[in-house]
Amino acid sequence: RSGEMAKLTQLIDNEVFRAYATYATIVLLKMMLMSLITAYFRMSRKAFVNPEDTASFGKGESAKKYLRTDPSVERVRRGHLNDLENIVPFLGIGLLYALSGPELSTALLHFRIFTGARIAHTFAYLIPLPQPARGLSWAVAYAVTISMAYKVLKTALYL
Amino acid sequence: RSGEMAKLTQLIDNEVFRAYATYATIVLLKMMLMSLITAYFRMSRKAFVNPEDTASFGKGESAKKYLRTDPSVERVRRGHLNDLENIVPFLGIGLLYALSGPELSTALLHFRIFTGARIAHTFAYLIPLPQPARGLSWAVAYAVTISMAYKVLKTALYL
Amino acid sequence: RSGEMAKLTQLIDNEVFRAYATYATIVLLKMMLMSLITAYFRMSRKAFVNPEDTASFGKGESAKKYLRTDPSVERVRRGHLNDLENIVPFLGIGLLYALSGPELSTALLHFRIFTGARIAHTFAYLIPLPQPARGLSWAVAYAVTISMAYKVLKTALYL
Repeated sequence: RSGEMAKLTQLIDNEVFRAYATYATIVLLKMMLMSLITAYFRMSRKAFVNPEDTASFGKGESAKKYLRTDPSVERVRRGHLNDLENIVPFLGIGLLYALSGPELSTALLHFRIFTGARIAHTFAYLIPLPQPARGLSWAVAYAVTISMAYKVLKTALYL
Repeated sequence: RSGEMAKLTQLIDNEVFRAYATYATIVLLKMMLMSLITAYFRMSRKAFVNPEDTASFGKGESAKKYLRTDPSVERVRRGHLNDLENIVPFLGIGLLYALSGPELSTALLHFRIFTGARIAHTFAYLIPLPQPARGLSWAVAYAVTISMAYKVLKTALYL
Repeated sequence: RSGEMAKLTQLIDNEVFRAYATYATIVLLKMMLMSLITAYFRMSRKAFVNPEDTASFGKGESAKKYLRTDPSVERVRRGHLNDLENIVPFLGIGLLYALSGPELSTALLHFRIFTGARIAHTFAYLIPLPQPARGLSWAVAYAVTISMAYKVLKTALYL
């Protein structure tokens, strides 16, 4: 048992893997924050989608008027979906990249730029900032993921 | 070759990692079930979104009337998206947590509560149960993920 | 340090793990392509959802007419979401499967069929091909994931 644990600890003790663990966790926590922001806007704007969520506002027509879409809620939801579409590839490709033996400094550069770009993307989407702020932050994170995918395929390719 | 395999087998033989593998697989199978439930409601309610899916009901207007949204279909789809939003963080953070050397009993507690809460969330969404059943089951799984993220960052933080 | 690196390299040197890394990366790159196709259709069809995205088309009513949904854009977005729903389980279950010590030939068969079926699914969705092309390609990838989940639970089950 303790021998196995030591092996696992070696993985988490590797600096590249620790950097991956840190930035993957940060970016996932950021994505999870979108749920709270959605809930905040649903409640402050009184814009719900499930009838059972409006039951506390009374019965019948008085509650039904809160079953509606709100531009702020929809905006946060689009940001959340964009996170899913871009953070899922980072999680998978980033893990394989971390195991492909990159230089620590190169790996840190990839993880930091990706994380920074996705945080910038969220601000650009929610404020919202004028374009090309959102498009650019999206493209930077996308390019970082492609760069890691290239390294993974160069190291591991086995078709 | 067999030396490497032995190493991999050691990972899957570690009890915490086996527990992660078990609960991650269960919760992913539960999420995959949402696709089947959506398909079931689309067919039983005859509510489709792609014109090519209604071709077997005839041509022109007779088929076009089945291109519509149905409340039950939309409800399952919302549950499915909520699964994606919450199970993706569990997969990523849970894997890193399993590699961060937690006590087996603590790890099992996290994995079991998360899995139970997400199964409860699905029932609360699909039946539907009155609130706060769905909100509470969502919050419990969310809190478990935050707790694992805290452990990962405490163990592995490398910025 | 170099001892740890050697251990990590052993993981990426394992043939089954290399095959997983290769096909997981391919299927994630394919999913990322959906973002570019969505952007292409949004621009060529001039169909946007965020007001800040239409600012370059002028102000007021002249820009507002581009805030609309387009069938081609919506079709790509549905394909993208279907990718997320099916590729996330493949990523998680496939990783655990690769660590559960399968035969190399069996693992390759699973990874290749899944990847081929998801590429076929994208073509079936975007062209679109008449049913059951899309349904069948979806079902094949789904069945491959279930088969890998069965192997993971058989090897690792720890409740």
